[in-house]
Amino acid sequence: MNMMKYDAGTGELKNWLIQENAFDERYLGKCEAIFAQGNGYLGVRNALEEAYTGEVRNTFVTGTFNKASREEVTELPNAADMTGMTIMIDGHKINLSQGELKAYKRTMNLKNGEVIREFTWTSPSGVTINARFQRIVSLADEHVMAAALCLSVDKDAAVSIETGIDGSVTNSGSQHFKDLKRRIYEARDMQYLAKTTESGVWFAQHAACSLDAEAEVLPIMGRRTLMNKFSFKVPAGQSIHFEKISILHTSRDKVYEGMDAENITETLKKDGMTALKAAFAKGYEVLKQESENKWKEYWKESDILIEGDADFDQLAVRFALYHLNIMVKHDDNRVGIGAKALTGEGYKGHSFWDTEMFILPYFTFTRPQTARTLLEYRYRNLFGAHLKARECGYEGAMYPWECAWVDDGEVTPLYIGADVVTGKLTKCWTGIIEHHISADIAYAVEQYYLITGDKEFMKNYGYEIILDTALFWASRLQYNAEKDRYEILDVIGPDEYKEHVDNNTYTNYMAANNMSQALKIIAQLSEEDSESYRKLDEKLDLSYIKEKIEACIDKIYLPIPNEDGIIPQSDQFLSLKKLDLTKYKTSDKVLTIYNDFNTEQLNQYMVSKQADTVMLLFLLDTLFDQEIKRKNFIFYEDKTLHDSSLSKSTHAILANDLGLEKMAYDLYEGALTIDLGTQMKSSNEGIHSASAGGIWESTVMGFGGVRMEGEHMRIAPKLPEKWNRLIFPLCFKGNSFIVKADHKSVVVENNGKKDVAILLGKEMVTIAAGQKVKRNL
Amino acid sequence: MNMMKYDAGTGELKNWLIQENAFDERYLGKCEAIFAQGNGYLGVRNALEEAYTGEVRNTFVTGTFNKASREEVTELPNAADMTGMTIMIDGHKINLSQGELKAYKRTMNLKNGEVIREFTWTSPSGVTINARFQRIVSLADEHVMAAALCLSVDKDAAVSIETGIDGSVTNSGSQHFKDLKRRIYEARDMQYLAKTTESGVWFAQHAACSLDAEAEVLPIMGRRTLMNKFSFKVPAGQSIHFEKISILHTSRDKVYEGMDAENITETLKKDGMTALKAAFAKGYEVLKQESENKWKEYWKESDILIEGDADFDQLAVRFALYHLNIMVKHDDNRVGIGAKALTGEGYKGHSFWDTEMFILPYFTFTRPQTARTLLEYRYRNLFGAHLKARECGYEGAMYPWECAWVDDGEVTPLYIGADVVTGKLTKCWTGIIEHHISADIAYAVEQYYLITGDKEFMKNYGYEIILDTALFWASRLQYNAEKDRYEILDVIGPDEYKEHVDNNTYTNYMAANNMSQALKIIAQLSEEDSESYRKLDEKLDLSYIKEKIEACIDKIYLPIPNEDGIIPQSDQFLSLKKLDLTKYKTSDKVLTIYNDFNTEQLNQYMVSKQADTVMLLFLLDTLFDQEIKRKNFIFYEDKTLHDSSLSKSTHAILANDLGLEKMAYDLYEGALTIDLGTQMKSSNEGIHSASAGGIWESTVMGFGGVRMEGEHMRIAPKLPEKWNRLIFPLCFKGNSFIVKADHKSVVVENNGKKDVAILLGKEMVTIAAGQKVKRNL
Repeated sequence: MNMMKYDAGTGELKNWLIQENAFDERYLGKCEAIFAQGNGYLGVRNALEEAYTGEVRNTFVTGTFNKASREEVTELPNAADMTGMTIMIDGHKINLSQGELKAYKRTMNLKNGEVIREFTWTSPSGVTINARFQRIVSLADEHVMAAALCLSVDKDAAVSIETGIDGSVTNSGSQHFKDLKRRIYEARDMQYLAKTTESGVWFAQHAACSLDAEAEVLPIMGRRTLMNKFSFKVPAGQSIHFEKISILHTSRDKVYEGMDAENITETLKKDGMTALKAAFAKGYEVLKQESENKWKEYWKESDILIEGDADFDQLAVRFALYHLNIMVKHDDNRVGIGAKALTGEGYKGHSFWDTEMFILPYFTFTRPQTARTLLEYRYRNLFGAHLKARECGYEGAMYPWECAWVDDGEVTPLYIGADVVTGKLTKCWTGIIEHHISADIAYAVEQYYLITGDKEFMKNYGYEIILDTALFWASRLQYNAEKDRYEILDVIGPDEYKEHVDNNTYTNYMAANNMSQALKIIAQLSEEDSESYRKLDEKLDLSYIKEKIEACIDKIYLPIPNEDGIIPQSDQFLSLKKLDLTKYKTSDKVLTIYNDFNTEQLNQYMVSKQADTVMLLFLLDTLFDQEIKRKNFIFYEDKTLHDSSLSKSTHAILANDLGLEKMAYDLYEGALTIDLGTQMKSSNEGIHSASAGGIWESTVMGFGGVRMEGEHMRIAPKLPEKWNRLIFPLCFKGNSFIVKADHKSVVVENNGKKDVAILLGKEMVTIAAGQKVKRNL
Repeated sequence: MNMMKYDAGTGELKNWLIQENAFDERYLGKCEAIFAQGNGYLGVRNALEEAYTGEVRNTFVTGTFNKASREEVTELPNAADMTGMTIMIDGHKINLSQGELKAYKRTMNLKNGEVIREFTWTSPSGVTINARFQRIVSLADEHVMAAALCLSVDKDAAVSIETGIDGSVTNSGSQHFKDLKRRIYEARDMQYLAKTTESGVWFAQHAACSLDAEAEVLPIMGRRTLMNKFSFKVPAGQSIHFEKISILHTSRDKVYEGMDAENITETLKKDGMTALKAAFAKGYEVLKQESENKWKEYWKESDILIEGDADFDQLAVRFALYHLNIMVKHDDNRVGIGAKALTGEGYKGHSFWDTEMFILPYFTFTRPQTARTLLEYRYRNLFGAHLKARECGYEGAMYPWECAWVDDGEVTPLYIGADVVTGKLTKCWTGIIEHHISADIAYAVEQYYLITGDKEFMKNYGYEIILDTALFWASRLQYNAEKDRYEILDVIGPDEYKEHVDNNTYTNYMAANNMSQALKIIAQLSEEDSESYRKLDEKLDLSYIKEKIEACIDKIYLPIPNEDGIIPQSDQFLSLKKLDLTKYKTSDKVLTIYNDFNTEQLNQYMVSKQADTVMLLFLLDTLFDQEIKRKNFIFYEDKTLHDSSLSKSTHAILANDLGLEKMAYDLYEGALTIDLGTQMKSSNEGIHSASAGGIWESTVMGFGGVRMEGEHMRIAPKLPEKWNRLIFPLCFKGNSFIVKADHKSVVVENNGKKDVAILLGKEMVTIAAGQKVKRNL
């Protein structure tokens, strides 16, 4: 059953609309997640107004982490719900699985962030209803969400709408809130305050409803709920219009930082009521327009155009750009990006290497200020990185595998799921031995600097991150006397199907790279910037770091291609047993291999979850020549299940680099369909935020051919056959560019204020400010 | 829509079966509550196996109170669910609101406590399923519940059943459990431990399933869940049989009292696994038979027979007797009876005056050992009663309005619901000023003694309760110098629509009665039992109590009938405004008056929620003559909405006493239908346990005419016209009796070992052991 329509829309809305065109209670999660709305501060899943079993009704505020109980890890708490509505027609709840559904569509308009749901439904009691629901989360005011409902009936009907603020929601059964304070003012304005149980973050939620018809309005307080119930008659053929405005503030909002805890609830009440009254006075249409205007600005700066026989590609890229915009709070360096953004409970809102390796390139190349904010978040996380290094007996900064609030340190859960063989909880090793993230962050810092030229950032934050992580690696290396070399034993590389491996090639090279960066910085600063040197030296003891690194850097074991040209993924990988992967590769679900093997058993087979050595070939792309790259790509692609969303986009780029055009496009389509595909359950826990970044990467860095070669930006597009033209914006060293590429040529417009030299293909070209150049490919 | 069938059953099962004969998702609460199963230790709501929105899936263990967070009051936590099953047919969940339901019935068999649900349903995908679910909670082993499922299909189908232990349940959004420990042994035996957040009670739950067909079995651990998923094929026309055995222990079980906290989880695991293996080996049928045998014993001792044109009356009385048996843990004096028993979250498992005034008479007259256990619970609650008296500035024992665990003291919530006028939370005054419960408990103690003659109880517990509460009243009285009398100002009487009243007649008389009891006991003990006197004097200072009571008892204001013969319910009542109650009296819902008035406004009208002065006329039935009783009954009945379940049964008794036979029977039918009636939502929060007691009272004490006259039991039946015969058991002073009454005569059989004198009508008759006497009426 294909419920999704991906080329909906014509004219101005062509390739801007995603449509769900059938209702199936089994697959609620799909559109709850992909249609999620937000603004970086607020994230609201698109659970339907009426309740269904299996729904997941989430409202998150970035950074409001809390531990529900001692043995759980911190997570984003699910705020009291303001989206649900119980609508009764002649005593029957609207429930589309019952009665007869004659027409149904729900549309996410990526252009203005609005979701509209329309249906014609005959209730079991025989009343036919036409309903149209609209919903936004404002991009203009991060505290505001708004909903509207138009409803008409074919027979006189008694209708009631009960909606308000529902604090009985949990995170899959874990309740994060206590100390509820509730009140209804003037029989309309609902006020609900609650505090997170451990972190003490106050959430203040306000809501008010209006109806354009005479109604009896009853306030209802349940145990953790606060509702207004409107009861009214709708005459046959007439329609009613109902609106609900909802406001959310928390005491963790930046504006309240440092505020006296005693006064905070009164302040939150005051600010909430003020915001509610202001938004209520505007009403749905005005609020929507304000938000739409902000979306217009965004798309003007950020849209990517794909011309050709590529409607779905165009739409999918916009889908990615939509979510990239709402997954990050662009002005707050206290918060990162969750692996499922703010669209589901999966991964608890924690930030992984996903951010730096898959999402950050988009921001670095297009919205450098946001990229900087995200890296500042990592700088603030040095606190947790030091904590973790000390706990593990290392020096320097060892970044937590999963990060939450800036003070939290490592927040990876210790156990997860059931072992299919033993029935015990499975130990989650990533938080303990997946170490490459520290080198990944250092790599991202350098990329950020190379692309933006933001030296001020480096002086205040960037150098320190690289130096501190380099010291960690120097302390992490293990000397093998027999072989007279330094090794990194017992880790997990990017490929999480292989636990406890030795000398993961990705990890070893990235660690060596991290240490080289540090040596370069120390040398450079001591020569060119004694002030920065002195400050960092005071904090970190640079000669100590230099000495530690120099003692080992030349002897780090960096695996090289064997006689067949294959670079071993780890010491163990090439001697593992072979396994027929057909069954898993052809499955339309991911992770199905776990139904047959537990992690210990998986360790024994030559199978990768995701890009690992291939990822290295992409990141450090001058390490090996094309031939070695090609051999390794083919070797590893064959053994990779792409069971992680962090995989296909990278393989797509490599395939395109290596001239494997068909494979590149297939992998690209695979990457585009991680959230948008026909698999109706894969986004249940939230969208894959790294996949959105990966879509941008494979589009712009892959087919658009954008890559850093040392300090130079290179643009060498190579479009898929189906595409006629690709147009995308870029920022480089403070200048804005528009790149327009087709199969034969590329045009680069410099819309900035400086002349800039760029590698177009292999030719270095200087493009004057305000000018454009064209080169044949 | 009448979904209920109350005269189902023929032959041996005639008037034993309650049937739900249609499925309507709007009314899940009704049968969840009235079909609830249990054994006094465990209470399990009859939520359906498959999930629906609006369901309330509760499993409670008596006495395991916990506060979910600081500002909430303690309540019975909802244990991890073991009743739910996700059953998929060809990828579609069973959901009876979808597809086509061709036949449906769910039957509660009161005789053996089993619930059977059978349906024929065609799924949206066109497979027709015949299903039969069976469920028991064992009366033979309080830790055991068992379920069975037979399923057949009309086409070959792929079926899966996913079931286990689901700890994502909450109490309406509040989560009580932390520190989960989960494991599956031998791919079958599921183990789930969790601890209450504040009281630290460990729950250990074990479950195992079996299927009589080849299946793939997958263990699934969710965040707070532990499941086994069976996937298998069912060929057309064949049927499969599935069973699930579930076990529940807690560290608060009596057997673990005093056990070292460190070892408790290991002990619970061991005991749980042992119990699971033993029960699993027996299987559903054997477990059901064991439980059924216990039910047989119960009914042999306890059944009441009503002959005549009275099928529903007969069934409703058995329904009450069923719930009276499963609402109490007969051998544990650390736990009381909840206002909704163990059948819902309403009133949080707390005990009110309901127990002593409405439920205890049943136990005192039929199972005195259970009555004693319940009164011992009140004795243990003296701790909380002292606490409350001190907090309020009184002496002696002031019982909490709501009681939970024996150490908790007052647990009434401070706020409840929304004020319809101001929108603020409504303050709940009952815990602060509803004081009559202390006198009610003392009254119940005396009744227990009069009926059982259990002097040993009085010496160890009963005297102390009466003396200690009497002292409270002496300190509670307020001297009115102008009128030279003692008053009790600012209380709530039984009628909770009147807050802050002065000299509530019920309260004043019951307080005076309590103080008189105390003086009598002091006089009697000082004459007859110096040993008891000395012990109590040491503990309580009896001369002090005597002095305090004697100083005021003759001057307590005890309202008397006015010139119209009306006893004022309080100082205020007779001057309140009159209100037309027709709208509320004819509503099929209760409490609808709250939609129009807030509590403050209600205070100004002459309207009662429930029996108040009428209750007093029943309890102290020699206070006033028949004429005064009649006048007052008619006056107050007119003004009483019976919006409490504690009302109609008492009015029914009074009406029958006063010769208002038709009204008596109408009120009786009203009492019988509080849970069983056609109102489909009134039992949503649980059955009304006091109503079950009230049904027994109005049957046996009302129509059966059983009452204490001083020390003598009087039996003076007066049956409703429709009944031909009423047969019921009684215990009096350690002897068992069977009473058989028709319209003309009564036969009393003494099945005990002593000769006993009884008032039959107005004649004192001595019935020799083993003999019976008959008297015309």
